[in-house]
Amino acid sequence: MSGRSKVIIIGGGFGGLCAARTLGSAPVDIILIDRRNYHLFQPLLYQVATGSLSPGEIAAPLRGVLGRQKNTRVLLGDVEDIDPALKRVLLADGASFEYDSLIVASGSTSFYYGNDQWQKWAPGLKSLEEATTIRHKILYAFEVAERLSDPALRRAWLTFVIVGAGPTGVELAGAIGEIARETLKNDFRSIHPEESRIILLDGAPRLLMPFPEDLARKAERSLAKLGVQVKTKAMVKSVDQASVTLELGDHEERLDTRTVIWAGGVTVAALGRTLAKRTGAETDRGGRIKVGPDLTIAEFPDIYVIGDLALSLDAEGKPLAGVAQVAMQQGTYAAKAIVRKVQGKPPRKAFEYLDKGNLAVIGRAAAVANVFGIHLWGLPAWLVWVFIHLMYIVEFQSRLVVFIKWAIQDLTSSRGARLITGTANTDFDFNHEIACENCTTELKADPLGAEVH
Amino acid sequence: MSGRSKVIIIGGGFGGLCAARTLGSAPVDIILIDRRNYHLFQPLLYQVATGSLSPGEIAAPLRGVLGRQKNTRVLLGDVEDIDPALKRVLLADGASFEYDSLIVASGSTSFYYGNDQWQKWAPGLKSLEEATTIRHKILYAFEVAERLSDPALRRAWLTFVIVGAGPTGVELAGAIGEIARETLKNDFRSIHPEESRIILLDGAPRLLMPFPEDLARKAERSLAKLGVQVKTKAMVKSVDQASVTLELGDHEERLDTRTVIWAGGVTVAALGRTLAKRTGAETDRGGRIKVGPDLTIAEFPDIYVIGDLALSLDAEGKPLAGVAQVAMQQGTYAAKAIVRKVQGKPPRKAFEYLDKGNLAVIGRAAAVANVFGIHLWGLPAWLVWVFIHLMYIVEFQSRLVVFIKWAIQDLTSSRGARLITGTANTDFDFNHEIACENCTTELKADPLGAEVH
Repeated sequence: MSGRSKVIIIGGGFGGLCAARTLGSAPVDIILIDRRNYHLFQPLLYQVATGSLSPGEIAAPLRGVLGRQKNTRVLLGDVEDIDPALKRVLLADGASFEYDSLIVASGSTSFYYGNDQWQKWAPGLKSLEEATTIRHKILYAFEVAERLSDPALRRAWLTFVIVGAGPTGVELAGAIGEIARETLKNDFRSIHPEESRIILLDGAPRLLMPFPEDLARKAERSLAKLGVQVKTKAMVKSVDQASVTLELGDHEERLDTRTVIWAGGVTVAALGRTLAKRTGAETDRGGRIKVGPDLTIAEFPDIYVIGDLALSLDAEGKPLAGVAQVAMQQGTYAAKAIVRKVQGKPPRKAFEYLDKGNLAVIGRAAAVANVFGIHLWGLPAWLVWVFIHLMYIVEFQSRLVVFIKWAIQDLTSSRGARLITGTANTDFDFNHEIACENCTTELKADPLGAEVH
Repeated sequence: MSGRSKVIIIGGGFGGLCAARTLGSAPVDIILIDRRNYHLFQPLLYQVATGSLSPGEIAAPLRGVLGRQKNTRVLLGDVEDIDPALKRVLLADGASFEYDSLIVASGSTSFYYGNDQWQKWAPGLKSLEEATTIRHKILYAFEVAERLSDPALRRAWLTFVIVGAGPTGVELAGAIGEIARETLKNDFRSIHPEESRIILLDGAPRLLMPFPEDLARKAERSLAKLGVQVKTKAMVKSVDQASVTLELGDHEERLDTRTVIWAGGVTVAALGRTLAKRTGAETDRGGRIKVGPDLTIAEFPDIYVIGDLALSLDAEGKPLAGVAQVAMQQGTYAAKAIVRKVQGKPPRKAFEYLDKGNLAVIGRAAAVANVFGIHLWGLPAWLVWVFIHLMYIVEFQSRLVVFIKWAIQDLTSSRGARLITGTANTDFDFNHEIACENCTTELKADPLGAEVH
């Protein structure tokens, strides 16, 4: 490569991709490293999990998005370590690359508050693989229930528990409500999908904490219409193959269920912890790395940390949320700061987050939105949501296809992508479950990861 | 259920689904059993394997397709055995169901001529899972090549071998040619995807044996333009992690390659063998069950066998091919025969196949078609192909979305679904491969099924 300044970006999520695109015409050589070959439009992941969209529709190949940027090289690789003294990034395959400026945007992963064994029964919603696993679990639950005659077992299979009532949890619960009440209405002969119980839990005193209270109440009412029951101040005590146990203030409650989805907390990905160790950076409980007003780590002015990995404070000293908007604005800021540095100009002013608001969709033509302080709900909120999401989907192709799919779905209540594919690391073996009931024996534990045909 | 005649259909492919729909308003109770919850539009599977379409776009949930047929129950289950004496179907989960008429349409699976160990290195193209595995292998090969500097290794990673030059093999080879020459043109910095070698093999003296010879020649010329090299009279002698060895008449040839796709022969699924045993039916070498002119097994007038499982002869005594057209016509025939039986009418005349022709697509706006004896190629053949395939895709929604995707792709040469997801039972571990080269050691065998990040 040339003698130009070398920029390495780790992670092709919202933050990393924005940074790379902002640097597209700058006189620098960029390497963007990701473990995936695609950028994932995470806010729509719940639609893959609930069978509205196919994986290809919310993901854009990074090489495709960045292919025309001649100064950018995309590498598929797993960053294992960062050496801030030698200014090198080390990959798991042994390769290493030097940087003049580094942007770390390696994101976050689901956090089970030290109970990683729950993950097996309660997958999170962070990757396409998890989304198809969840889709598998939801659709299979109806299939199993159709074949069972024992009412208690059937009820357990038709109980869906979503842990975490932030936007993702609310959107998931709403979508499952729609599947049960609309999509599958005519599909079964023995069960009535609308009898299913959908329970949305949160430890907080209400749902949608980042939203104003009136909108949260509106959301709860919309969810109720779809059969979703909200339980607040509910802490998860345990999750296993067949149940979730809750702590509700003074008493406990056990929910018999075969489908638990984790939309609870997040923690930083492993690389974040390595970076904190190498730089001695301060971190918070979730592992986020404290950055200065210019988004760099103290004493490492060449290392920018952005997105979910960054602990970045707003004007009032409160940490910014781990959402796409923040990551994108940070990515753009870091990229522009690097350009100024290369040009020998003085640093820009401190990063300032422009909060455009919050959005959550509850179902067909229903949402809540807080846009620049204006509270919207129902159809207007939903239209804002559709507009914003479509504009942000990276590739033209996906945008059009997604839009048409939504239009058709909203006209017909059908879901085209409700396929049960691959294997889900689920808590059942279809044949085994049914056979157990047929021979009236006890449910045996752990036919783990059995291939589902 | 009522005292009405009971019909069981095993398999929701083209044959089974056509039979079920034809019986939709008949005074019978239908159970359709499949191991999958969706009907798969197999002729477009190669487009999923090559990143043009997403799985959801070529699959339609069976419950969705048959939901409005009040006389039909869809069961997700694995048929293990058939008892023709008691007229019962037994499921792997222990459940059993009685029939008055049975339609067996359980299809076929890839056949490795007794060398099942090749499957690990040369996946077939029969299921959505296999299609995404193949997509994974193809796209990863370019990614690995981008990271390697050894020219011989790089060449091996950029060599794609397709075994079997029937329509599926031709379509796959053409699509890979397009990926290399068009889609990925600007995506890489170190490799030139158009340098990749694509080799299409067949034991027969020419490609596309079911087609007239002039069209086969036209197809070969179109393939050559996409960089596909055709080797005929080539028998596969062995397949392993890093090569394919061929027998070419008097000599052998070894091709160093990391991507082999099996579009060779097929054999009947396991249930077919069980049924043959239970009924003592005659079978051919591929296990297909000989049926009479009314598509039933000799001495079992209530068991219809259709589609890839049936050995059904045309007017000249030649076996009908295992294609969708045949299965669909047979499904309709069997369903109508059952209706007549229920109505107490005498049997219909013998099944007669109406051959509408053959089609194979070679690339963007290029195909060969033999439609009712008229030979077409180039754009006209391609338009016929687009029209026929869209008309046959079961659900309205998929049809529209697929059409729009194709239109956009053909205008832009982009492929939206080129994602590397999940795990592929592939012959490499990305980190290991690169690391091997970095430390200049020999390629080590079998990092089998390693999770790809």
